[in-house]
This record gives sequence, C-alpha cells and structure tokens, in this order.
Amino acid sequence: MTRFPDIAPGQRIETLPTPIPVIDEAVMQANIERVQAYMRQHGIAFRPHIKTHKLASVARRQLEAGAVGINCQKISEARVFADAGFADILITYNIVGEGKLDALKALHADVPRLSVTADSAATIEGLANTFSAERPLTVLVECDTGGGRCGVQSPEDAVALAKTIFQAPGLAFGGLMTYPAPRSEERTEAFFAAAKGALDGAGIPCPVITNGGTPSLFSAHLVPTATEHRAGTYVYNDRAMMRAGHCTLEDCAMRILATVVSRPTPERAVIDAGSKALTSDLLGFEDHGLLPDLPEARITGLSEEHGVIDLGPHAGDRPAVGDRVSIVPNHTCVVTNLFDFMVFHRDGVVTRVEPILARGQVW
Amino acid sequence: MTRFPDIAPGQRIETLPTPIPVIDEAVMQANIERVQAYMRQHGIAFRPHIKTHKLASVARRQLEAGAVGINCQKISEARVFADAGFADILITYNIVGEGKLDALKALHADVPRLSVTADSAATIEGLANTFSAERPLTVLVECDTGGGRCGVQSPEDAVALAKTIFQAPGLAFGGLMTYPAPRSEERTEAFFAAAKGALDGAGIPCPVITNGGTPSLFSAHLVPTATEHRAGTYVYNDRAMMRAGHCTLEDCAMRILATVVSRPTPERAVIDAGSKALTSDLLGFEDHGLLPDLPEARITGLSEEHGVIDLGPHAGDRPAVGDRVSIVPNHTCVVTNLFDFMVFHRDGVVTRVEPILARGQVW
Repeated sequence: MTRFPDIAPGQRIETLPTPIPVIDEAVMQANIERVQAYMRQHGIAFRPHIKTHKLASVARRQLEAGAVGINCQKISEARVFADAGFADILITYNIVGEGKLDALKALHADVPRLSVTADSAATIEGLANTFSAERPLTVLVECDTGGGRCGVQSPEDAVALAKTIFQAPGLAFGGLMTYPAPRSEERTEAFFAAAKGALDGAGIPCPVITNGGTPSLFSAHLVPTATEHRAGTYVYNDRAMMRAGHCTLEDCAMRILATVVSRPTPERAVIDAGSKALTSDLLGFEDHGLLPDLPEARITGLSEEHGVIDLGPHAGDRPAVGDRVSIVPNHTCVVTNLFDFMVFHRDGVVTRVEPILARGQVW
Repeated sequence: MTRFPDIAPGQRIETLPTPIPVIDEAVMQANIERVQAYMRQHGIAFRPHIKTHKLASVARRQLEAGAVGINCQKISEARVFADAGFADILITYNIVGEGKLDALKALHADVPRLSVTADSAATIEGLANTFSAERPLTVLVECDTGGGRCGVQSPEDAVALAKTIFQAPGLAFGGLMTYPAPRSEERTEAFFAAAKGALDGAGIPCPVITNGGTPSLFSAHLVPTATEHRAGTYVYNDRAMMRAGHCTLEDCAMRILATVVSRPTPERAVIDAGSKALTSDLLGFEDHGLLPDLPEARITGLSEEHGVIDLGPHAGDRPAVGDRVSIVPNHTCVVTNLFDFMVFHRDGVVTRVEPILARGQVW
C-alpha cells in the first residue's frame, strides 16, 4: 500500500479504499464556468486561488475558462505552479525575511508576471532591498476592509504605502488588494473608492484593485471600483459555501468517502474518516461535515482516524459495519492539504488520479 | 525551495524558514525515559503509539528504553514501520473490507508479531475468512470503557466476541483493549476485571489487557487488571497535556516557529503559521496554541496561512514585522501530520532533519 495508490481510470468510486476524497469533474467544470460567466458579465477580471485544489491541471481549466492568472499564498506554492509553466502569479502575502526574499527573487526570474502584496513599510523595505530597476517586482498594497486579518487600516495608509512602492527603484506599484469579510461589499467599495481617488489625485497609476473570497462572490459587482476578484473555494465548494448561500448541495464537487468500521450502540456509528481526512475546521458548525444520505445523522466527534456519528432519532441497524458513507466537508481546501493525491470521477467512474504537488507547501 | 529543505545539522533554529515545527531532543528523550520508568516501576508493559511522531528513529528510542512494541492505527502506517524492521505491531483498529484485509494479510506475512483489534462479529468474520490456522492472526477485543468511540459496551459482549475469536481457526484471541476517557481508571478497571473474570471462568486465556492514553497516563497503575499501556502524545507533549496535568511547559518537546508578517494595529499581530501549520484542533481551548514568550497574547484566529494574535493589554510595537514567535501547539500529533519532515535540535542547534515517512497514511 503506497502513498500513491493503485487506482486506475475506469474504476468505480464505490471500490476505492477509504477514507478518500473524490472530485466530480462535471460539477467542478460547471463551478468554473458559472463563476467565470458572472465575472465576464460584470467585466471583472478573475484570478482563482489555487489553495483549494493545489493542482496545475485544475488551474489550467480555470485559465481556459478565462481567468487572468492565479493567486498563491506562499512562495513554495508559486514555485510549483511556475515550474508547471504558469506565467501570471499573484502571491497575496507579506514576504518577510532573508531566506524568503532570496526565494522570491529566484521565482521572479522564472515568472513573466509575478506580483506580491505588502501592508507595512517593513515588508516594502525588504522587497525594495531585494529587487532592482532592471527587473522591478510588482507590489500591491493589502487593505483591511473589514476582514480583520492583514492590511492597512485606512485609505490614507494605503496611499502612503503606495507612494513608498511607487518611489522605490526596484518596485512597481501594482494596485490595491483586500481579503474582505463576507457581505462587506459596501465597506470594501468605500475603502477602495477613497484610496483610488487619493491615488488619482497624487498621480499614482493604480492598475489593479483586487477583491476576494467565495462566500459573497456573486456580489462582487457591488464593489465597482475593484477591477479583479480572487476566489478559491468556489471550484469545489463545501458545506460552509452552502450555508453562505453561494451554492447548493449539487454544486459541491468534493465528497469524502468513508467506511463504517464500528457500530458500538444503535445510536452510534464510527467511520474511518477522522481529523486526518476531514480536518477539525468547524467554520462555525457544531459538527464535522454533512452526510447527504443520512440527513438525521451528525458527525459529532473526530479523532485522528475515527469519526463518531450520532445517527439521531432513526437509529437502527443501518449503516452497518462495512457500509459506506459520503461526506461533504465543512471546508474543502483544508481536506486537499491532507492527501497526497486527488481522485477525479465522472458519474462515479474514476477519470484520473493526480499527485497534489502543491500540498504541504507552507513557505 | 523544495519539500525537503536545505537544513543542515549545526544550523541554529533561529535561522530556519518559518513556519516550522522543531523537536527538542533532550526533552523528548526525558519524556520517553520518565514514562518508561513509571511503567517499569508498576510492572506495566508499555507500547507507544507512533501517531505522534510517525518516525522509525523515535520509535527505536522508545523500544531501546524498554517498550514492548509499537501501536499503529492504520495498515499503511504499520507497513512503513514493518518495512523499517519493526517486529511487534498492534493496529488498534477494526480492519474492514476486502482491500484492507488483503493488505493486512500481506502485512502479517512480514511482521513477526502483528495484532489487531475488533469490536463486532462483522469485523471478526472478515478477519476469520482472511487468515488460516497455518498462521493465525492475533485479535484483541476493543472495549468501550467510557471513551465513547469504538468498543463493545459490556464485559459480557467482550467475552462473547472473545469466544468467537478463540474458536476461529485462523484467529488467536489476544486479549482486551480500550481507549478510555481520561481519569476513568475506576470504570476501566471494573470493566476489565469483570471481563477477565468471565474469560477465566470460560477457560479462555487472555494474554494481554491493554489500556491507553497520555492524559492520565501516570494513573495507569490504578487499572491493575491491565497488563499493558499505550500512549503517543507523551513523547512530545503539548498544551492539552499540560492542561490535563500530565506535564509542564518544560516537558513540551515541540515548538512551532513562526514569523510576524503583519502588524495591522497595535493590538493585532499576524504570523505565518495558520491551520496548515497548527491545525484547527481546539481540544476545548478557545485559542490556537500557547505563546510562552508572550503570556498576555492569544492566537484568536487561524486561516490556512495566517494566525491572528491578539496581543492583549500590553500591546505595542513588539513583536514587530520580521520578529519570531514560538508556539506550543494545542495538539502535537496533528501538527506532525501536516509537515513532510521534522527538525530535531539540541539547545537550539539542529541535530537532524527527517522525512516523516508515515505522514498522511490514512488507510
């Protein structure tokens, strides 16, 4: 039994070893096309985040549908995609420290259009000291428009950093970026509009204003100042995206297949999918994934290799030991990061198995 | 930047790329010896669970200290250790389904002393149909002594399954096993004593009675009917084990090193360790790990590549962008599963970097 298993195209997914995540090709492709069509309709450039699939083959489908480039979070992820020939990569991260800056410089030599973000003078100083006017690096200013993670706190601060980038010989000002809270379009638009107005007033061109996130993706047009949107989760979708109103169960391309290994009581079933298969990401849910075929059942507990299911009021003999269950994960992106390979299928027949090359890339 | 990084013995851990987990060799060795000394003192055989380290080198140190064998949770993990020459492996799992049974049979051919657990007639039937009297497989009955996961619910049910195993030509009854709730020694002892008494009365030899868990490990002697104890987390320890009273901060061998990449506000710092480095395992905590050097600060939020720190009442300029922080994880075992390699050090100087061969083994 190897890490990369003996799974072949043509095999039915019911015969796969469990636990295992599988992706429905048709659902994934429809997700790609639906989102791209929305972006096209509204004239918004679309840049998918690779965190959800971590696969060059899926990113290529996203580009074929019309995406302008890809979004990575770490240099090591971008390196995987650069080596696969991707030419336009935005790393939405503050690259800090000598080793990372060296790696970024090497990456910049290999990627025709590479850009990063920064939200502090310290980050910009490190970048400015690394790159030169011969081949400047494009840097966008990250803005906190309500997400409460990274980002400058005001349009004024954004403009100040933009000026610093604009004046640095080794850097090119690439624009503004946010990872917003869901349903904060009004606040994000106000922030961007104010910053864009001040940049215009200062004579600083602002080529890209990039907004992000899947949960309220179909409200991206409510941020008209933005020129671009980034999203990852939409490609597979998950239970959290269903709750957010972004998609329905039918739009969820990923299932985790698991086997019942124990039925200690009439109410309790234990499956072979634990936190090593589903992750412990709750994202506000109280249980660990959706069981579409067992609507009364809830995955109430996870340890690394066990999932404990409370079968609820209709508990009985089923599912029995050896029966299979199918789970829609709370959060699809983190599941991808747990497995060394991904199985794709069409109508339950395996189409391909791919090593997840950008899995576990934390740097 | 590759998955297996250019890190060399002699390097100071302060110069490592972040995020990265590091293990203090001396603390780990002391943990191994302290627990083994306790088990020796009480005449309890000790079988470490490899889930925490997933490394043959660490398991060898555990055996050198006096452990009787190792405990794995999946066939694929046991395969890694079998290939590394380990001769006594207990898989505490219901092995279910044709593919898994085939893999178990192949493993059994390669491991001198292999045993598994079962908690149902269905699991035992599958095992009995796979193995033969020429080379029987040893099977222990898993008992639910309060843990609420797998396991038969009563001593009577344990004895009934023991009889089934005892009578199956291809199986050998190996004894009883539990993964108990912490601090349930009284209940576990009562369960085991009743089952053992009934087995004695039925003339069924019960070679091993194996208890488990790190949280109340040092109360293992309060289950005198047990002959063996299994534990994993004790080798590295973590914040949850500190809370359980098993260890102190000084006994925690694992730290996750991270770098501050953003200081959006005086109260907020953002580090480059998110759920891909720390996991989202809360284990009852409200925050995502302990910051020993920043006692007022709390990691309040994680996304995949970002950790958001609330610096608390003493917020100010420090830590600044580029500063490093050191984190004791809530749950050490799950961190190991996220990284392709582990860095060991002594007094802050790297001693070795090892690929985590049994990482991501879910089958």
